Amino acid sequence: MEEDLKIISDGALSYCRGNLFLEGCALEKIAADRGTPCYVYSTQVLRGRVSSLKEAFAPLSPLICYSVKANSNLTVLRLMKEENLGVDVVSEGELLRARKAGFPGEKIVFAGAGKSPQEIDLAVRWHLFCLTVENAEELDYIEKAGARYKFPVRCALRLNLNVDVDTHHYVKTSRKETKFGLDPEQAIPLIKNRRRWRWVRIAGLHFHLGSQIKEPSGYAQALSLVREFCEKTRFVPEILDIGGGFGISYRPDEHVVPISSFAQTVSGTLKGWCRTRVILEPGRYLVGTAGFLLTRVLYTKKRPGGKTFIIVDAAMNDLVRPAIYGSYHHIIPVRKRMGKNMVADVVGPVCETGDYLAKERTLPAPVRAGDLLIVAGAGAYGFSMASNYNSRRRPCEVLVEGRKSRLIRKRESFQDLWRLEEN
Amino acid sequence: MEEDLKIISDGALSYCRGNLFLEGCALEKIAADRGTPCYVYSTQVLRGRVSSLKEAFAPLSPLICYSVKANSNLTVLRLMKEENLGVDVVSEGELLRARKAGFPGEKIVFAGAGKSPQEIDLAVRWHLFCLTVENAEELDYIEKAGARYKFPVRCALRLNLNVDVDTHHYVKTSRKETKFGLDPEQAIPLIKNRRRWRWVRIAGLHFHLGSQIKEPSGYAQALSLVREFCEKTRFVPEILDIGGGFGISYRPDEHVVPISSFAQTVSGTLKGWCRTRVILEPGRYLVGTAGFLLTRVLYTKKRPGGKTFIIVDAAMNDLVRPAIYGSYHHIIPVRKRMGKNMVADVVGPVCETGDYLAKERTLPAPVRAGDLLIVAGAGAYGFSMASNYNSRRRPCEVLVEGRKSRLIRKRESFQDLWRLEEN
Repeated sequence: MEEDLKIISDGALSYCRGNLFLEGCALEKIAADRGTPCYVYSTQVLRGRVSSLKEAFAPLSPLICYSVKANSNLTVLRLMKEENLGVDVVSEGELLRARKAGFPGEKIVFAGAGKSPQEIDLAVRWHLFCLTVENAEELDYIEKAGARYKFPVRCALRLNLNVDVDTHHYVKTSRKETKFGLDPEQAIPLIKNRRRWRWVRIAGLHFHLGSQIKEPSGYAQALSLVREFCEKTRFVPEILDIGGGFGISYRPDEHVVPISSFAQTVSGTLKGWCRTRVILEPGRYLVGTAGFLLTRVLYTKKRPGGKTFIIVDAAMNDLVRPAIYGSYHHIIPVRKRMGKNMVADVVGPVCETGDYLAKERTLPAPVRAGDLLIVAGAGAYGFSMASNYNSRRRPCEVLVEGRKSRLIRKRESFQDLWRLEEN
Repeated sequence: MEEDLKIISDGALSYCRGNLFLEGCALEKIAADRGTPCYVYSTQVLRGRVSSLKEAFAPLSPLICYSVKANSNLTVLRLMKEENLGVDVVSEGELLRARKAGFPGEKIVFAGAGKSPQEIDLAVRWHLFCLTVENAEELDYIEKAGARYKFPVRCALRLNLNVDVDTHHYVKTSRKETKFGLDPEQAIPLIKNRRRWRWVRIAGLHFHLGSQIKEPSGYAQALSLVREFCEKTRFVPEILDIGGGFGISYRPDEHVVPISSFAQTVSGTLKGWCRTRVILEPGRYLVGTAGFLLTRVLYTKKRPGGKTFIIVDAAMNDLVRPAIYGSYHHIIPVRKRMGKNMVADVVGPVCETGDYLAKERTLPAPVRAGDLLIVAGAGAYGFSMASNYNSRRRPCEVLVEGRKSRLIRKRESFQDLWRLEEN
């Protein structure tokens, strides 16, 4: 139990006199102060994850670009900036967020399967470090924008290497049947004719295998395909963006190889590529285990001869990952329970059966109305995917640092829900 | 083709000189005026659906309570009020919306798997027509609130009848393994002891089988179980809320029995229940076919020897139904195309493979960057489930009436995305 807590929180969660603490903050106090449901993040985990990643990849001196889509809260972005990271953005909104958090253009890369001409214009205007290219037509837009701002635009062609990885099919992003990237055979003429552009500078290559990848063999395979591609085209990439995708343990017993193994595989395969700057785009790895959804039990319900349900005040609109990906999130009572285990579905108040946080989950008994629970592994793709379904307000967000906690996003007001519908 | 258009839009869509019109409005003009992506609704379809439903169920003189969760835009709610409907709400936010749209308490029913004590308080304070009860503990909260406001509260016990219907497992809501309602055997003592409450008035029963149900046999089965239950408990319900769930045709060839068949089944089974007021809670049936997501093509991409992708500016954050339920939405070009058919995946710019609007869809060629498409069947569970994933702004909403169109929800500003994260 205590061991499980450590694994799923990088050691940031612990019970003290029967009360669950995140770092030095009692979660009960946070619930009392801020209300529930509420996302709570640990600074210690965020910084610890950044350190581990930096350390593991140090021999490559990569540009680490935090993937904003995982968690785009401005305070989280500012923390990443303090840690001297760059950012990977995929939309105008993310680009504006990155700028607002203070990232200079040269620390921002823009990737995205469907960049609008306006987005490309903005990216060029702000002199981003690199734009990845997924459609040949983007090059025309980039050329025009480069000419407009008299700025030579560093680009990386995103290759779809048709490499499979063991993850949910929705987050496999380098298979031929997905929308992402260029087929290598389509990229070859672009590489060969790269000098025909005046403002587009095809400076490198990009691939992204997917998300929540648990072992590095896919990276080895992809990198050897990239090497082949470069030999065939006699292209020496100045930059090589290998995407993100490094997995985390959602279950205490889920085996994900340590980040150092990913790093060793990548470093090993890239030996001799001394002229190439490597870019990493980690998202989930940096923030996933740092975040928790704090929720209160509203009701418990036992069907005669059937299931038990724990109905909590957080729902699929707050955390949609179980509904979309069938994903597992570890659930822990905030008051330590020493009773026998019980098995229950943990569900929200939203009016559909897809609204659940856990199915047939074993939890220490008892769980009663009014109890607090936390849902772990909620730092990535938690708030960033939240909606107002059932006219529910999205949760507030709190950042914990040692014994201090602060509100980093207010809870929406009801007024916020319909403000844009008036007049 | 023209026939398909009629089926999926109740006749509101038509081509005129090669341009697609919704009622009397050119969709091209709406895109030019309002930008894309954009939800567009047809008043004619909304009112037409209300009429059909009213006519079909006229012999029962039911209280028709529009299910706000399907589409909660204030203008849509006001239109339902003009049509003299009531509303079914499931949360404080929906209740506040209903009040804002002008519904009096006696036209509102409150259902919901996890009503908080505050929600119950509000519902009682505002003298709602009926609260459904899904957990025995709710009765305590209702009693207290009733005493507080000296108001006897009409309640309907929601029965989980364990009736299966043929629909997506996420929207089956009357199976024993779902969180909804009370088992009949748990409801019996509540009925028998109903006089022990001073302010709770157990006045009726409720069931809700699920959503997007295509034929009425489930209703017949449920109603005969209710009849048995009433005979066994000698309970004469003053109200009987049979939920919603009436399906619509998402595909031109999707067979859904006409609403009159649902009505006949219900009326037939309820013959002799002259003292019982029937409540209906239709959502999708009233608004689903009335709404369209208007989107512009950003890129097209053909994999050598493989798939074709049409990348549009609408994404899973705008319409999440395909990603969550794998649902089909008919897609139609705004400029009539007479070319050979092509087969393509229609996808958005969001960075995951789950971001698609259609897979391997046959469309009239050509489809080129800059073209407009509409995604049909988007009036229900479209905007109401939208999110800001990838820091994308949610679409605006436009209501068409004849040759007029008006903005009924502004597009979010980027500022709106992070306003609550500052200070």
